Amino acid sequence: MRIQKEQIEDHNRKTAKSHSDGLSNLHRHMDQKKISFEAVVQRLSDFQVAIPSWSLGAGGTRFGRFPMGGEPGSLEQKIEDVGLLHSLNRSSGAISLHIPWDIPENTDAIKALAREHDIVFDAVNSNTFQDQPGQKHSYKFGSLSHTDADVREQAIAHNLEVIHHGEALGSKAITIWLADGSNFPGQQNFRQALRRTFESLESIYSQMPADWKMLVEYKPFEPNFYSMVVPDWGTSFLLATKLGDRAKSLVDLGHHLPNTNIEQIAAILMNEGKLGGFHFNDSKYGDDDLTTGSINPYQLFLIFNELLDEPDGPSGPWSQISWMIDASHNIKDPLEDLLQSVEGIKTALAQALLVDRAALQDARGANDAVMAQQILEDAFRTDVRSLLRESRIQKGAAADPLGLYRALEMRKALIRERGRDSVATGL
Amino acid sequence: MRIQKEQIEDHNRKTAKSHSDGLSNLHRHMDQKKISFEAVVQRLSDFQVAIPSWSLGAGGTRFGRFPMGGEPGSLEQKIEDVGLLHSLNRSSGAISLHIPWDIPENTDAIKALAREHDIVFDAVNSNTFQDQPGQKHSYKFGSLSHTDADVREQAIAHNLEVIHHGEALGSKAITIWLADGSNFPGQQNFRQALRRTFESLESIYSQMPADWKMLVEYKPFEPNFYSMVVPDWGTSFLLATKLGDRAKSLVDLGHHLPNTNIEQIAAILMNEGKLGGFHFNDSKYGDDDLTTGSINPYQLFLIFNELLDEPDGPSGPWSQISWMIDASHNIKDPLEDLLQSVEGIKTALAQALLVDRAALQDARGANDAVMAQQILEDAFRTDVRSLLRESRIQKGAAADPLGLYRALEMRKALIRERGRDSVATGL
Amino acid sequence: MRIQKEQIEDHNRKTAKSHSDGLSNLHRHMDQKKISFEAVVQRLSDFQVAIPSWSLGAGGTRFGRFPMGGEPGSLEQKIEDVGLLHSLNRSSGAISLHIPWDIPENTDAIKALAREHDIVFDAVNSNTFQDQPGQKHSYKFGSLSHTDADVREQAIAHNLEVIHHGEALGSKAITIWLADGSNFPGQQNFRQALRRTFESLESIYSQMPADWKMLVEYKPFEPNFYSMVVPDWGTSFLLATKLGDRAKSLVDLGHHLPNTNIEQIAAILMNEGKLGGFHFNDSKYGDDDLTTGSINPYQLFLIFNELLDEPDGPSGPWSQISWMIDASHNIKDPLEDLLQSVEGIKTALAQALLVDRAALQDARGANDAVMAQQILEDAFRTDVRSLLRESRIQKGAAADPLGLYRALEMRKALIRERGRDSVATGL
Amino acid sequence: MRIQKEQIEDHNRKTAKSHSDGLSNLHRHMDQKKISFEAVVQRLSDFQVAIPSWSLGAGGTRFGRFPMGGEPGSLEQKIEDVGLLHSLNRSSGAISLHIPWDIPENTDAIKALAREHDIVFDAVNSNTFQDQPGQKHSYKFGSLSHTDADVREQAIAHNLEVIHHGEALGSKAITIWLADGSNFPGQQNFRQALRRTFESLESIYSQMPADWKMLVEYKPFEPNFYSMVVPDWGTSFLLATKLGDRAKSLVDLGHHLPNTNIEQIAAILMNEGKLGGFHFNDSKYGDDDLTTGSINPYQLFLIFNELLDEPDGPSGPWSQISWMIDASHNIKDPLEDLLQSVEGIKTALAQALLVDRAALQDARGANDAVMAQQILEDAFRTDVRSLLRESRIQKGAAADPLGLYRALEMRKALIRERGRDSVATGL
Repeated sequence: MRIQKEQIEDHNRKTAKSHSDGLSNLHRHMDQKKISFEAVVQRLSDFQVAIPSWSLGAGGTRFGRFPMGGEPGSLEQKIEDVGLLHSLNRSSGAISLHIPWDIPENTDAIKALAREHDIVFDAVNSNTFQDQPGQKHSYKFGSLSHTDADVREQAIAHNLEVIHHGEALGSKAITIWLADGSNFPGQQNFRQALRRTFESLESIYSQMPADWKMLVEYKPFEPNFYSMVVPDWGTSFLLATKLGDRAKSLVDLGHHLPNTNIEQIAAILMNEGKLGGFHFNDSKYGDDDLTTGSINPYQLFLIFNELLDEPDGPSGPWSQISWMIDASHNIKDPLEDLLQSVEGIKTALAQALLVDRAALQDARGANDAVMAQQILEDAFRTDVRSLLRESRIQKGAAADPLGLYRALEMRKALIRERGRDSVATGL
Repeated sequence: MRIQKEQIEDHNRKTAKSHSDGLSNLHRHMDQKKISFEAVVQRLSDFQVAIPSWSLGAGGTRFGRFPMGGEPGSLEQKIEDVGLLHSLNRSSGAISLHIPWDIPENTDAIKALAREHDIVFDAVNSNTFQDQPGQKHSYKFGSLSHTDADVREQAIAHNLEVIHHGEALGSKAITIWLADGSNFPGQQNFRQALRRTFESLESIYSQMPADWKMLVEYKPFEPNFYSMVVPDWGTSFLLATKLGDRAKSLVDLGHHLPNTNIEQIAAILMNEGKLGGFHFNDSKYGDDDLTTGSINPYQLFLIFNELLDEPDGPSGPWSQISWMIDASHNIKDPLEDLLQSVEGIKTALAQALLVDRAALQDARGANDAVMAQQILEDAFRTDVRSLLRESRIQKGAAADPLGLYRALEMRKALIRERGRDSVATGL
Repeated sequence: MRIQKEQIEDHNRKTAKSHSDGLSNLHRHMDQKKISFEAVVQRLSDFQVAIPSWSLGAGGTRFGRFPMGGEPGSLEQKIEDVGLLHSLNRSSGAISLHIPWDIPENTDAIKALAREHDIVFDAVNSNTFQDQPGQKHSYKFGSLSHTDADVREQAIAHNLEVIHHGEALGSKAITIWLADGSNFPGQQNFRQALRRTFESLESIYSQMPADWKMLVEYKPFEPNFYSMVVPDWGTSFLLATKLGDRAKSLVDLGHHLPNTNIEQIAAILMNEGKLGGFHFNDSKYGDDDLTTGSINPYQLFLIFNELLDEPDGPSGPWSQISWMIDASHNIKDPLEDLLQSVEGIKTALAQALLVDRAALQDARGANDAVMAQQILEDAFRTDVRSLLRESRIQKGAAADPLGLYRALEMRKALIRERGRDSVATGL
Repeated sequence: MRIQKEQIEDHNRKTAKSHSDGLSNLHRHMDQKKISFEAVVQRLSDFQVAIPSWSLGAGGTRFGRFPMGGEPGSLEQKIEDVGLLHSLNRSSGAISLHIPWDIPENTDAIKALAREHDIVFDAVNSNTFQDQPGQKHSYKFGSLSHTDADVREQAIAHNLEVIHHGEALGSKAITIWLADGSNFPGQQNFRQALRRTFESLESIYSQMPADWKMLVEYKPFEPNFYSMVVPDWGTSFLLATKLGDRAKSLVDLGHHLPNTNIEQIAAILMNEGKLGGFHFNDSKYGDDDLTTGSINPYQLFLIFNELLDEPDGPSGPWSQISWMIDASHNIKDPLEDLLQSVEGIKTALAQALLVDRAALQDARGANDAVMAQQILEDAFRTDVRSLLRESRIQKGAAADPLGLYRALEMRKALIRERGRDSVATGL
């Protein structure tokens, strides 16, 4: 399913007048704050967030799943879906694959298809939280942390295979979300499990290509409900530090205990050179995997504000960060949800770029909490939608990606093409 | 799979000596506190907790499921499993069915089978959180609260059908866990959804047999992650109050926000005559559905302590309570887990029965928090295992149900009988 | 300390040009959505939020307090401070008194002073969480719920005295925040404490003037750390329902367990005719009493969105709501903080007034979660600051209240007048 | 106020018979599990937990304080109170001082007094969360992390002075609870604050005596309500690792976000050689500072279980841990509360010593979660009170410390001696 250049141009012409009104107002506002309009637009245009292959079909809960028609049934169709998103917003030019759900059969053909859609391959993801048919050892009681060395070996080999697939496609990173843990007090020797996990990671790390990085994800609970082997940023940081420079922590916004100050974690990891990437989503209770920015948009802005809080060079901490969405769309059309998520992320980025950093530094120097709050809110309350629209129009994307997606009735077209009962591989 | 009376008697003989030692010690202790040993044993013997039909197979999370061999593949086999548990502990003499997972094809045969195992039918459960094959309307966006009257009608009809099945089997209550809610701000008009829900419940209530009660369950989140239509005890209480005397609130221990004082909720509902029943389990983070008492046994004791906190007649609040387990056993043998859960529940009950209520009343009258704490801890720290053992032996159950289940290698026998790949109907 | 009309006019002239630019843009946007600009401005102008007398001095924690100079040392000075705020924003035309901290010595003089500042007296607050010098019975172990009838009588008498003071000043409501509870399991008989509390409230309710309302506040913890007698909205609702029509629940935003969906509570209470008022503040962890809107502004918007979610007549649920701030300013100048809080509240109200309700109703009817989210975000992302400014300018308030407060160096003036060491009565 | 040896002996004689009954039962049980009765009693006898000087008076909340008569008004009286506790339980042979609340005027006299009571000086505590009269710079906006170098210097100097006092008394550690943080987004540059904190700590660390250790405490919130500079174990670990071998993390049980798995944190820190000590208390909501073991005794047991989970030599991780209580007693007699806390801690230790470690290792090796749970519960459900009694009797302490304290009416005696209005120095 592709969108033609003309369809986008036609759409953009229709919104031209109201767009330019909002824009000039904002331009003036930025001039006053001595923030370069062009530089911000450029930064927004450059920003790309990877789409995870598993988010393209309807998600579900343990209580059930309500399928959505036209889901991508193959890796090729998943790339097409990401290509569709990218043609609409020009900000989704990457896909993050999950092995074994997305093993490419013909690597060259897949690469060519991705190139056609202007899509690159972001971090690849391993899976040792499910058993696959024909698998020798079960991960029921863990994988990289398992008590049995044979299971650990199998899990290590799987991770190396994932890297191997990723290398063929041009990926430069592996994300390891280790779902290992325990459900009951006493079940696991915490110290031994941690040591075994470190040894397993070390084995993978040492066999990783020299230009790759390893992203160590953390999560406090689910699918294990008493403990997880890597429950928090501290444990991820500890492991990444011991592993070496190319191991970093990955922050999934939904993987925190209630009330956690996530923006501070991002700041600390940046300070230590260990912030490797994000899995974006939003949540109210646990790992709810809701649309990014749909529940607490101010928190998302504060996270980006931290990332931009100190001057940063071209190969500084910011450049080290992998940007990925990790959401699950139980009741929305996944493609609409992803368009909303990308928009939510870029909204927060745009707002953070509007923060008057010199004034903020002064307020902090004077311990003027009132003024510091005003400065952040001034940026956050600014309506940056015309800015995002402008960055899209300049890149040939749609002024209103979601609007155009609906106007063109893309989901109907996908259902026509793939059928009502197609089911995305994955969860 | 049945256990012979002789197997139990043989097992009990082996533990007789050490049992009687522990028992006499405890007997003496209770005499000192003027608590009748016989009355407590009787109360423990009488106590029965219903086993939910869906807990007899391996559970799972949205990330996967690790099957366990020998799962019951039919309603008959589920009753046999509960019968097995009941023969071991004489405290699981009831089963709670879930429709449509457990629709009896031949009611008379099912009743006869249950009778054979000395099992009665506790509250029946409806399911409008999943779509069933051939169902006319989808519950993707709700059921009893749905915006569309046709969907609501379908859900009402389903609940009436559940009651109909239950009536045939001798149940006297329906548990309605309404999974309706919303995932995103704005999605639902809260007030209208509540009003529609009340109307739907009212329709069911008015068609319920005169000797039935309706148990209105509440849950703050999952499977919806922004709001649930019945999120807390307050909403359940509000609905139950408007519905009438035979509508009550059901407290599932895992359905609370972090840090909730659940024992106080139980006390308030008891005070208002609205405590209808429990779904027992334990949790550390959310609705983790872990073995009852495995995470916070003191909280479980405090709940039972509230239930016994005021004198209560034969048809008083206590007699109105339905006792059910609602757990999910991702990595344990479900039957072992259920034996542990029942034991956890009865342990808490036994401890609560040992509380010196006269002394507690005095301490409270004097606002002596130190002594009140001592009195509760004195009961909680007492080793009541010989008491539980005694109540079992007197009823012809196994002194050590889990030990005997293992010694007899029951799971192996079930796998032999039903196969390694049998899968329980349900989630 | 007073601000002259000319100072405000002079200040407003300076911002006139940039203000009108932003405004015309917004006006156009509202016309497109068929939302009356004038009606929204009027609604914003009419909205008044009461300032609590205890928020005018520096707050503190149990670990210490860092005083701020120029604090109001008398009720007269407190009224002057609220008058100062009101002259700046024309939205703080009410004060909420706390007895015994603010007992008026000369009622007529106080009323005259308030009239001069265009200030009315909102709900009065009782205090039975502290002991006062010379008090006969201690509230160490509770007040309205105390085991001892004499203590309860004393607490009832205090509440009646508070009503008496409020009546003399023209208040029409009493807010009862009952801090009673327990710190240890066992300390309190929950059921008896609830019954005693109801009886005490009933006694107060029955002696309240016929045109008064009683606001029953709830709080899950602090100052008691195991249980509170009125821990949640359900208990408050239960009490208010039994008391009668003029008893309502009061929602303090900081008085909820982690992850609570507060906007849904507001909706349910509105639906039942039991939403009596708000205590506005913001929080990240517990009852942090931070500036309203400073931590989660989207949540605040969602609350106002619920309040406006259904058509409402002139004496409908909205008109029954008392609007109050309840914050504590440990490190900010309290007057600056209150200006920010009022602005945060009015921002949320303005955004909620911009929601396209017809479109929202359509989206909900179609269960279109994507569009419902878009509609709310469209309102929330709109920069409403020019709207707030306009409503202020039309009423003779300052275009930028905080800016003018700082430009006029009001805190310095207050310190000059009252001294560096003046301490506000209260906590 | 001292207790005579004869009073204790007399008291112990009275309980001798029932004590020996319970004991023999337990002895038999331990023999069966091949756990040495004598070794466990010895370990319990050796265990000493330090009493913090600030816990000897009535605590309070920001809402008020209800004083308790007979509070210690001087350092001498505080030592006497700890001596009183120690004479009763022989497990409180250490005091943890807080500077500036407890500056000794005559070091030699204080040491002599402590020696008389058989009390040693545990870790000393600095205080930069309050301003002291005459202090040059305010800590309103931080201390070791302050933006102003002069404030940081003052805070460093204070910490060095604390060490100096501690050295004179024989302490070997300083606990640094850094209350610095921010209340509002934007107020603080997280990265700079962390770097400044590290530099300040480094300065203190480098000037610390060679045989001292530094305990870096962490806390997620309070007294700052948006962020704390050292919010979690990860940040504490990061700082302690950079500082050097003698810097360790201190775990205060109440300083965690909801649902945190504290026992796992203890295990991880032990594994890394960075567990420096505990502040014991219990909590249901936040830093509630309740009696240790009064809310969740199973969690306390699980923590001790982790500490004993691996074989440990005489100078292993266990030997590095400082044991301290940090509680606040708003409504209890502080001395009674401390007796209960020590008992709660030793109960958990005793239970953990009863865990059948060989069986547990086997169960874990077999991934037998059911059996692992049984093994822990077997230890936890054992009534260890006779064991604690025995260890006390052998050391000349009271069989029932709280009972004897009450029987001797010690609080009355303290009030007689010190007056009803004496107030403990401190919070």
